[in-house]
Amino acid sequence: MTRIDNFKSIIDRYKVVFFDAFGVLKTYTGLLPGIERTFAYLEQQNKDYYIVTNDASRSPAQLAESYHRNGLSAISADKIVSSGMLAKEYLDLKVNDGIVAYLGTADSAHYIERSGLHTLHINQVDSSNIEKVNALVFLDDEGFNWCDDLNKAVNLLRKRTIPAIVANTDHAYPKSLHDVSIAIGGIAHMVEKIVGKEFIRFGKPDSQMFMFAYDLLRERGPISKQDIVMVGDTLQTDIWGGNKFGLDTVLVLSGNTQAKDAETRITTTGIVPTYICGSAVVEYDEFGF
Amino acid sequence: MTRIDNFKSIIDRYKVVFFDAFGVLKTYTGLLPGIERTFAYLEQQNKDYYIVTNDASRSPAQLAESYHRNGLSAISADKIVSSGMLAKEYLDLKVNDGIVAYLGTADSAHYIERSGLHTLHINQVDSSNIEKVNALVFLDDEGFNWCDDLNKAVNLLRKRTIPAIVANTDHAYPKSLHDVSIAIGGIAHMVEKIVGKEFIRFGKPDSQMFMFAYDLLRERGPISKQDIVMVGDTLQTDIWGGNKFGLDTVLVLSGNTQAKDAETRITTTGIVPTYICGSAVVEYDEFGF
Amino acid sequence: MTRIDNFKSIIDRYKVVFFDAFGVLKTYTGLLPGIERTFAYLEQQNKDYYIVTNDASRSPAQLAESYHRNGLSAISADKIVSSGMLAKEYLDLKVNDGIVAYLGTADSAHYIERSGLHTLHINQVDSSNIEKVNALVFLDDEGFNWCDDLNKAVNLLRKRTIPAIVANTDHAYPKSLHDVSIAIGGIAHMVEKIVGKEFIRFGKPDSQMFMFAYDLLRERGPISKQDIVMVGDTLQTDIWGGNKFGLDTVLVLSGNTQAKDAETRITTTGIVPTYICGSAVVEYDEFGF
Amino acid sequence: MTRIDNFKSIIDRYKVVFFDAFGVLKTYTGLLPGIERTFAYLEQQNKDYYIVTNDASRSPAQLAESYHRNGLSAISADKIVSSGMLAKEYLDLKVNDGIVAYLGTADSAHYIERSGLHTLHINQVDSSNIEKVNALVFLDDEGFNWCDDLNKAVNLLRKRTIPAIVANTDHAYPKSLHDVSIAIGGIAHMVEKIVGKEFIRFGKPDSQMFMFAYDLLRERGPISKQDIVMVGDTLQTDIWGGNKFGLDTVLVLSGNTQAKDAETRITTTGIVPTYICGSAVVEYDEFGF
Repeated sequence: MTRIDNFKSIIDRYKVVFFDAFGVLKTYTGLLPGIERTFAYLEQQNKDYYIVTNDASRSPAQLAESYHRNGLSAISADKIVSSGMLAKEYLDLKVNDGIVAYLGTADSAHYIERSGLHTLHINQVDSSNIEKVNALVFLDDEGFNWCDDLNKAVNLLRKRTIPAIVANTDHAYPKSLHDVSIAIGGIAHMVEKIVGKEFIRFGKPDSQMFMFAYDLLRERGPISKQDIVMVGDTLQTDIWGGNKFGLDTVLVLSGNTQAKDAETRITTTGIVPTYICGSAVVEYDEFGF
Repeated sequence: MTRIDNFKSIIDRYKVVFFDAFGVLKTYTGLLPGIERTFAYLEQQNKDYYIVTNDASRSPAQLAESYHRNGLSAISADKIVSSGMLAKEYLDLKVNDGIVAYLGTADSAHYIERSGLHTLHINQVDSSNIEKVNALVFLDDEGFNWCDDLNKAVNLLRKRTIPAIVANTDHAYPKSLHDVSIAIGGIAHMVEKIVGKEFIRFGKPDSQMFMFAYDLLRERGPISKQDIVMVGDTLQTDIWGGNKFGLDTVLVLSGNTQAKDAETRITTTGIVPTYICGSAVVEYDEFGF
Repeated sequence: MTRIDNFKSIIDRYKVVFFDAFGVLKTYTGLLPGIERTFAYLEQQNKDYYIVTNDASRSPAQLAESYHRNGLSAISADKIVSSGMLAKEYLDLKVNDGIVAYLGTADSAHYIERSGLHTLHINQVDSSNIEKVNALVFLDDEGFNWCDDLNKAVNLLRKRTIPAIVANTDHAYPKSLHDVSIAIGGIAHMVEKIVGKEFIRFGKPDSQMFMFAYDLLRERGPISKQDIVMVGDTLQTDIWGGNKFGLDTVLVLSGNTQAKDAETRITTTGIVPTYICGSAVVEYDEFGF
Repeated sequence: MTRIDNFKSIIDRYKVVFFDAFGVLKTYTGLLPGIERTFAYLEQQNKDYYIVTNDASRSPAQLAESYHRNGLSAISADKIVSSGMLAKEYLDLKVNDGIVAYLGTADSAHYIERSGLHTLHINQVDSSNIEKVNALVFLDDEGFNWCDDLNKAVNLLRKRTIPAIVANTDHAYPKSLHDVSIAIGGIAHMVEKIVGKEFIRFGKPDSQMFMFAYDLLRERGPISKQDIVMVGDTLQTDIWGGNKFGLDTVLVLSGNTQAKDAETRITTTGIVPTYICGSAVVEYDEFGF
C-alpha cells in the first residue's frame, strides 16, 4: 500500500545527507548490514553528510570509534552532531563559573568539562557546595543511583534557581529486539513535572540540532536547505524535526517504524515524510559495481 | 489579607469531618502539636470523621498503629480511607485470576493480597510467568530497585495488554523541613508516558476517594454531602477534589500551603476553599475545658 | 482476529445495564436499527438500565422525548443520567447565591436554573454585574458567539476567582458520516489553558457519572457493582471509566470504534473491555419470539 | 528585592540587540513613552538590532508602517523578524503546489501568497477543492467565523494528511489594560488536540525565530551569539527562548511581567534572565544630550 522509494535515487537528488544513527545506521546488534556501501557511495559521489543523533552518553570521538570497531571506518568524529554538543554549547555560552552538577556516566561528563567550570556528579552535591551549583545537566540514564540521585536532583532544583539542561530528549531507547530502556529524557521529564520548572532540552525534533549541522556545512561553503535530505526511522523526531527545519525527509523502515505500521502512523500523527524507503542501504546493483 | 476562620466554629456546623493526613494531622516530625484535642472534641460532640489519604505504603491497621505510637489513640483503622484501598477494590472487582505484579514494599503489598490471586514483586517477573501477569500495581516508591525494576515495568506493559493501577496519585511528598521525595505517582506517570497507555489512578483529587468514605458513612445512616466538610492542606488534591465532590472545604496552613502564599495560590489556580484556617487544631479555650 | 461476544448472552449475566447513548443507541441518522428489541428484552427479563451520557445540551425530559419521537418509547427521563445533571448538583451544593454565567443554548440553561440563583448568558455579563458572578458553566457548543463570548469568558475568569464548570468533557462529537463538531469540552479546555486555572469537569470517564447512576440504583434496593455492565462505543470514556469504577464493560463496534481498529486501539491504549460486541442490538432469534 | 539593572549600561556591552515588540516597544495604547530615545541611541552608537515578534497578522512592511505612524520612524521593515516569516519560509521550502488553506485576515494572508501556490480562505474549502489542499496555516484570530471555520479546519485535517502550520505560538495577547484576547496559537492548540496530529508551530520560544534573525546578521558579517542580547517582557517566550539559543537576556518590567511578580515568577519557573530592567527606554541623562 505504501509507496516505497529507492534510496540511492533519492540521495542522487541532494548534495548533503543527514542521518539519524539508531535504527538507521545501527541497531542493538551492531551495524545495519550493508550500510558501509552507502558511505562508499557518498564518498564516490562526493556528497557530504552528517550524523545527527540524540545522544549524550559518549563523545563524538567515542561514537566514531564505535563505528570503526564495527567495521564502518568512513565516519569520523567531525561528522557527528550529538545532542550532547548542544548542551555543551549552552554551558559555554551561558554558564561562566561555579559548579555544574550532572547525572550520567564519566563518559557523558566529557560534554560538560572545560576550563573554568567545575563539574560534579550529583551524588557529591551537599550543603557545603550547593550554593555554588549554577546548572544541572541530565546526560545519561546510567552512572548514577536512580532513587538517591533523582531525589537529590529534585531537591537541588527546589533550592536553587538554576538552569536544568537535558542533553537528550528521548524518553526511551531500544535495548534489544523486544525491550527498551528508559532514557534520560524520560527521567528528566519526571523531575521537571515534580519541580514545576521549565527545563532546557536539546535533541531532535528541536530545530537547534539541525541548525548546528547546517552551520557546520555553511562554514565550508554556500548551501541551501533544499540541498539537504534528512534520513530517520522515527516520525516524531527525525521526520517532524526535519520537516519543520525545512528539509526534505526520508522515513526508513529499519528501526522504530515498521513497514506494516508506517501508513497508519503517518495518517494518525499527520507527520508526512517526503519519501519512504526500506532502509538507508544502497544496494550493490544500484551502485554499479 | 486572607481571612482566617476559626476551626472549631467551622466543625460545629457539620456532622462529619474528612481529614487529609499529611500536613493536617501530622508532619515529617510527628503529630501536629495539639491535634489530639481536635479528636477529643469530635468525640465529645459526637461528630463522625474519616481520614482520607493518598497512601498505599501501609495498611490502615499499620497507619492507625503509627498514630497510636505517636500518642493519638483516637484513630482506629476503620476510620482510615487510603488510596490503597481503592486499588484493592479494583483488583477485587476486576482481576479474577493469575498474577498481580507490583512495585513497592512488602507492607504495601498487603493491599493486593487475597485468595485466588498470586502477587509477585516486579523483580520476579520473567519469561516463565509473564504470560500469567494480569495487572501491574504501583504501590510505593520504596521496596524496589528504581533503575532495574522501572525498566522491567516498562517492558512488561509493552508486552502485555493489562491494566496498570497507580495506588497513590501524588508526585512527591515531604521528607523533611526542606526536602521532598519523589512519590510512586510521579514514577508511574513517567512509565505511563513512555508506554503510551492509560493508567488507572486512585487518590485525591479523584472523586472515588471521597465516594468511598461517603459510602462508609451511608452504611451507618442517612447523610447528605452538605453535612460533611473536607479539611486539607493542598489546593490541587484536598480542596479541588472536595469541592468537585460537592463538599464544603477547609484549607489549613499547617502543611503544603503557607499563609504567605495562600491568597496567590487560590487566585492563580482558581481553586477556592470554603474556609481557611491556621490549622485543624481546636484550641483549649475554644474547647471549654 | 478479535473475538466477538453475543450481546444477549452478556446481559443475561447482569442485573443492570448502563448504556452510552451516542454510537450505542443512536447515530447522527437516528436510532440504531433494532435497538428497540434490546429494551423490549430488558423489560421482558425484568432487568434495569440507565443511559449514562456526556450531554448537557438538553434536559433528560427533552432527551427522552427525542427517543420517543424516533420510535423508542421505552426510555423515560428518569432513566437518563447526563453530565449536565452533575453540573446541576455541583451548583446546588456549592453555589448559594449571585449570578451563574453560562455558555450554551436556552435548552442547556435548564440545568442551572433554580430558585435563588440568577442565570445569565455570558454575553450579558458586563461591568454592572460581573462582581456578582459566582460561577461560569460551559454547557453546549451552540447558543453563543464563539469569538466574542469566549474572549468574554477568558476575561471573566481572569477578573473573578470563581469555579468554572464544564458540563460535558467531550472534545468533539460526530455530526455526520464523515464530519465531527467541536464540543464544549474542547472549547473549555482551550479557555482553561489560557487562563491557567483548574476547571471542574463532569462526564465520563470520571467516576462521578457512574456513581450518580449507581446511587439511583441503590435508592431502590441492594445492588453490587458486579451486577452491572457498562456498554459503550468509546474506549477512553465508556470503557476506561467503567473499568475504573469497577464495572464489567462491553465495547460495541457501532460507533466510534470500528471492527478493523478495535484490536489495535485496545493494545495501544491498554484499555481492555471485558467483552466486545458488534452492537447493543439483541437479535430476533436470540429473543425467542 | 529584585536587583534592577540600567538598560543603557547593558546595551553598551553588546553589538546587537534583539527586541520583543509587545510590552517592550509598544503597548495597547501605543508606543512606550521614550522608546524613540533607545533607537536614537542605538543609531548613535552604531549598534544593530532586530525586532523578533510572534505576529503573523500583518506583513513586516505593515508592522513598520504602524511604528512610523506612531512616531517611531527608525524601524524599517527589514529590521522585523515575525513568526509569519517562518511560516512563509516553511511553505516556500516544503509546499510546492496545490492549495494552501488559511485562517486569518487578508492582511495576514500576505505571508503565504507566492507564485505557484493558490491560497484559499478556509471558508472556501469544499468538496470540489479539498483534495488539492496541501497545507493549512493558522495566521490570525481575526478574519474568519470561529464556529463555522474552526469546525471546517477540524474536518479538513481529519480528511487530508497535510501539514498544519501555526504562524504564532502565543495563546493570548493583551487587548487593553485589563483584557486579553485569545490568539491564534491558543485556537490552533484546541484544533490540534481534537484532531490528534502534530502541528508545526513557529514563534518564540522556539529557536528557529532567533536563528532567522541571527542568520540575517551573519549575512552582513561575522558575529557571535555572545555579541547579542535579547530584550523581552515574557519569561516563557523571550527569556527562555533567548537563553536556550545561547543569548544573554534582559527581562523588562513594562509588559507581561510586573515588578511585584518578577522575583516569584523567576523562582517558580526556573527561567532566569541575565538582567532585569524597568523598561527598554534609555533615559535622557544617560544619553548625554
